[in-house]
Amino acid sequence: MRVLVLGGDGYLGWPTALHLSRAGHEVGIVDNLVRRQYDLEMGVDSLVPIPKIQRRVARWHEVSGLRMALYVGDITDYMFVERTISTFEPEAIVHFAEQRSAPYSMIDRAHAVYTQTNNVVGTLNLLYAIAELDPAIHLVKLGTMGEYGTPNIDIEEGFIEIEHKGRKDVLPYPKQPGSFYHLSKVHDSHNIMFACKIWGLRSTDLNQGIVYGQQTKEVALDDGLATRLDYDGVFGTVLNRFCAQAVAGHPLMVHGKGGQTRGMLDIRDTLACIELAVTHPADKGEYRVFNQFTEEFSVLDLAERVAHAYGGVEIAHIANPRVEADEHYYRAAHTKLLELGLVPHLLTSEQIESLLELAERYKDRIDLAAIEPTVSWRSTCSTLTTASSSTGNAVQAMALSLAEGWNHR
Amino acid sequence: MRVLVLGGDGYLGWPTALHLSRAGHEVGIVDNLVRRQYDLEMGVDSLVPIPKIQRRVARWHEVSGLRMALYVGDITDYMFVERTISTFEPEAIVHFAEQRSAPYSMIDRAHAVYTQTNNVVGTLNLLYAIAELDPAIHLVKLGTMGEYGTPNIDIEEGFIEIEHKGRKDVLPYPKQPGSFYHLSKVHDSHNIMFACKIWGLRSTDLNQGIVYGQQTKEVALDDGLATRLDYDGVFGTVLNRFCAQAVAGHPLMVHGKGGQTRGMLDIRDTLACIELAVTHPADKGEYRVFNQFTEEFSVLDLAERVAHAYGGVEIAHIANPRVEADEHYYRAAHTKLLELGLVPHLLTSEQIESLLELAERYKDRIDLAAIEPTVSWRSTCSTLTTASSSTGNAVQAMALSLAEGWNHR
Repeated sequence: MRVLVLGGDGYLGWPTALHLSRAGHEVGIVDNLVRRQYDLEMGVDSLVPIPKIQRRVARWHEVSGLRMALYVGDITDYMFVERTISTFEPEAIVHFAEQRSAPYSMIDRAHAVYTQTNNVVGTLNLLYAIAELDPAIHLVKLGTMGEYGTPNIDIEEGFIEIEHKGRKDVLPYPKQPGSFYHLSKVHDSHNIMFACKIWGLRSTDLNQGIVYGQQTKEVALDDGLATRLDYDGVFGTVLNRFCAQAVAGHPLMVHGKGGQTRGMLDIRDTLACIELAVTHPADKGEYRVFNQFTEEFSVLDLAERVAHAYGGVEIAHIANPRVEADEHYYRAAHTKLLELGLVPHLLTSEQIESLLELAERYKDRIDLAAIEPTVSWRSTCSTLTTASSSTGNAVQAMALSLAEGWNHR
Repeated sequence: MRVLVLGGDGYLGWPTALHLSRAGHEVGIVDNLVRRQYDLEMGVDSLVPIPKIQRRVARWHEVSGLRMALYVGDITDYMFVERTISTFEPEAIVHFAEQRSAPYSMIDRAHAVYTQTNNVVGTLNLLYAIAELDPAIHLVKLGTMGEYGTPNIDIEEGFIEIEHKGRKDVLPYPKQPGSFYHLSKVHDSHNIMFACKIWGLRSTDLNQGIVYGQQTKEVALDDGLATRLDYDGVFGTVLNRFCAQAVAGHPLMVHGKGGQTRGMLDIRDTLACIELAVTHPADKGEYRVFNQFTEEFSVLDLAERVAHAYGGVEIAHIANPRVEADEHYYRAAHTKLLELGLVPHLLTSEQIESLLELAERYKDRIDLAAIEPTVSWRSTCSTLTTASSSTGNAVQAMALSLAEGWNHR
């Protein structure tokens, strides 16, 4: 199939593109490269060094003999979206191209506004372009398990049958997202569901859990094919972060009691899930939701596993910078991808050890200052320790120019 | 109390400002006057002529002896929001300042993007400004009953207790909005609920039904205090539109079977509800939802009432330009405002006759071409019959410049 991977320069977008390419699909990558700009703003770097996108695409051709098309541009620019889809003529679009960090969205007003407008406008543009150019294109959209929050009842896959005052209906599952980033994904979900209804589009919304790991079959072929790994307080996800902390001799920093339980999955399962969604498209007019994770872990459980695998490391409980329950009920359905054939890679001590080895290899790249959580949910304006206000101003200025553009009417 | 009315130049914002002023509150009006710009874009006008905002505010002083502060500016401009709130120091903010037409949001991509960014960014700015300047300010936000759509179970006020697999929780009521405009209100609701949770803000979300009528106690005092009345296919709401159609000798245009049932209310009850919300503020950290309507009517029922009141007028069933069920279950709770003391003005034949009289008085201002529905939900790009593409381009260009601003990063 012809598959366009939006956000194909990112942590998951890049290995997804490689995986689909090797699986025999014709792959195009779309990216505005802003993820690398966030690194500049924060003053941090991927733990694993990654070449520029043009070089990675060339390296893939050298290693595999396979070509991928590359479109550098921004999906909030409709002309670019239209031109790219018209040129590449995809059958499926895998959409990773959003600002994906909760702490980043909570830095201050400018970052909240940027995250929501960037994510919502990009997705609206895609929906319009698909409707106008080829409504048969299957939109595979990355959502997040964080859209659901932590309700006191079981989480279902997108929809729930509710019996109320003697009547029944199947309705969208109620959402209680926990950051302006997670909120942007909820906004997207509502917009996509509506577009499928009115224009007969087909879409799969993948509510993904927290991904860990860095090695995939294709990434492991060559250092020049590496995907990024973030360990910092803003973009790093929990298990990846703990492994970097362990290796750096830093205590594993657990927010509050660490009873926060979340769905998680191995990076290799992300690729498998996306491929399953792409090769089993939604029907015309169908908006379907898959919960994309394989196991549930509490934060403390993960910390203990890493501490066990890496002797001598301490676990520190720090004040939770987020506003969230650190002990709660959590049970979420995740059978739809298993029914399509997913065979999960469960979290083993081997997987943790492989992550620790990777961190060891790049230990000298770890910046201890970048590990501390610097963004507080309770503050409307967090000061980033890793970014001076002058570098932070680049993105802020962009978000402001967006908002203030409306004055010129 | 000191109350800032955002969107105070609009159909409901203006009479709300007058009503609160006469009730003894100190009122400030904030408006970017873009509602008048939409008239220019569409090539239509309010059925009832209205003076410029500066003149209306002066007239109110002449008639009542009461002063209102006026701040002309755009709430998507954070500096303006900050300055206005710092200057006026409101205890409550009544927020009408959003693009509020479903058909307008469905014209094309540019109008969808404009509606969602305008509404979401404006509200985000308010939330940040309140959190930063004075978290005690009570945000009274206008939402819409359209956020709920038409589920096959009873609609509750914002939240619903769900029993599922032996467990229970009270969760946000699932939303199924029917246009990019209605979606923007759902996005707002989620953002506001979250801000109340993390920053301890207090907010009342008024999910308002469709408002009819034009006469309020204060508006009726003087022609110079009139509020606008829209009868056109894009901004006109159903009963107001039917009355203009009847008087113009145009058949009453019912979309499909006309079984669409909606909550509705008299304009005087809008003012009473807002005053009740303002004088009974939400608690610190509380996000509460009131369903603000008094009666349910089907579209066909309303057409028949108008036809009955205005002999000789025909009812025409036309293809529904929207994608919606034209026969469905509908039953929505609306007791919270009644419990606070609302005494509804129910829809009587006198009220319909008074609207018909108003339409008679301004009959020569009715543009028949403006009545036809020109925006189709099924099309991604509707051609407005009342606006040439060149006038339409003004707003489109603004929305485009927004989206494309992101390229300059």
